[in-house]
Amino acid sequence: MSKGTLYGIGVGPGDPELLTLKAVRLIQQVDVICYLTNAEDETRIVGDTHNEGHSQARTIASEFIDMRAKKAEELKIPMTYSQNRLTANGNYDFAAHKISKHLDQGKDVAFICEGDPLFFGSYAYLQERLCEKHTCISVPGICSPNAAGAAAGIPLAMQNESYAVLSGRSTDQELSLQLKQFDNLVIMKAGRSRSAILNTLKRTERFDDAVYVEYATRSNQKIVPDLTLLDDEPGPYFSLFIVSPHIGKRKWA
Amino acid sequence: MSKGTLYGIGVGPGDPELLTLKAVRLIQQVDVICYLTNAEDETRIVGDTHNEGHSQARTIASEFIDMRAKKAEELKIPMTYSQNRLTANGNYDFAAHKISKHLDQGKDVAFICEGDPLFFGSYAYLQERLCEKHTCISVPGICSPNAAGAAAGIPLAMQNESYAVLSGRSTDQELSLQLKQFDNLVIMKAGRSRSAILNTLKRTERFDDAVYVEYATRSNQKIVPDLTLLDDEPGPYFSLFIVSPHIGKRKWA
Repeated sequence: MSKGTLYGIGVGPGDPELLTLKAVRLIQQVDVICYLTNAEDETRIVGDTHNEGHSQARTIASEFIDMRAKKAEELKIPMTYSQNRLTANGNYDFAAHKISKHLDQGKDVAFICEGDPLFFGSYAYLQERLCEKHTCISVPGICSPNAAGAAAGIPLAMQNESYAVLSGRSTDQELSLQLKQFDNLVIMKAGRSRSAILNTLKRTERFDDAVYVEYATRSNQKIVPDLTLLDDEPGPYFSLFIVSPHIGKRKWA
Repeated sequence: MSKGTLYGIGVGPGDPELLTLKAVRLIQQVDVICYLTNAEDETRIVGDTHNEGHSQARTIASEFIDMRAKKAEELKIPMTYSQNRLTANGNYDFAAHKISKHLDQGKDVAFICEGDPLFFGSYAYLQERLCEKHTCISVPGICSPNAAGAAAGIPLAMQNESYAVLSGRSTDQELSLQLKQFDNLVIMKAGRSRSAILNTLKRTERFDDAVYVEYATRSNQKIVPDLTLLDDEPGPYFSLFIVSPHIGKRKWA
């Protein structure tokens, strides 16, 4: 019996219309749809309001899963987004083991994840565990910087400019350095460190170059061009700053 | 009469299946499809084999344009990709003028471009000319770094890593600096400077961390994991290097 294929499929930032045709076709075609779910109430960690068993990727792709002619098997992988790498690695080992069982049975599996599967995506951890023994194919998705840039109407890069993406968990020193060196930057997962990032933006004189975006393309999307309106509270996990010389020109329709 | 809306639509890197559902819907819905075409034989500049009047974006989206129930008007904007900004600005002024005429007549216009409209995309130049007087909406597309990462199976960033995108036209000094500072990098438009970039990769000890990709997701896609196989000839415009610590692990199925 020939083995199945694992597809790592990006379902984009939130708006179901931002799935690619390829993502939709594969979601409708495979034998098993696999995704991570919150193992416990993760509100504290991701600043989100969803509870145990929730999967944001499943929610984004739900109309395409539910409209399938033939119901797909669904494989839910409970995942604690622990900062502890040992725990996280154990979770991914378990997930890879479950998926490989399906692949060995000749079933094609779609692992769906938000954004792009290989851009800060959890799929990378499964691919590295499975790609030696199984065929793994990635389907790129719209990632949140591009979604946020489009939502706010801000070019992320033009001509020969440079562009960097940093985590909101970067050190202040690292952020400061790159805010001075790069024309355009996106600071992802900015919520928890929001007030620290605001201070760094001020100190590096990029405060007027920046826009804050939460939940790009989702129904609760929020775009804040005037950063003085942000209070000192932490924001949600799905939040970012775009920093760009092109923002000045647009402040603000 | 109410005015039309300008949609800046990313049609992705080349594979028509990588259009989003939203891009397809809008392409089928608008009154006018607008795109740039080569003003003259640009072979020298883009290292491509296409001639006058060709539009790569039109080619990628062609099945969706041609299958429309009602034929759309097509607005072709001849564009010389001149390094001279004055010439380029004149071209964009002309394009914006033509588009605004349609918008004033209440027609919706889709400006289609490869990749993502605001990530090194020509749409940014039209938006900045038109957004004060007209409604401009961007639809993000899959950009070439994500497409290339997926094609080569390489994570562009994991966890709290940093990620930078640089132009192949960056100075050697700039490239060297960022190759030392960033975990993951994509060097775009790498073809013309290919042998210079290869030398910089060697000097910064990132040569074994790098993969070269041409025409990601197109029928002539080429992935070169072993950089010693690249000769000293320039490559095409649509080529890039991915530099990532995750490449070592994958060298090479």
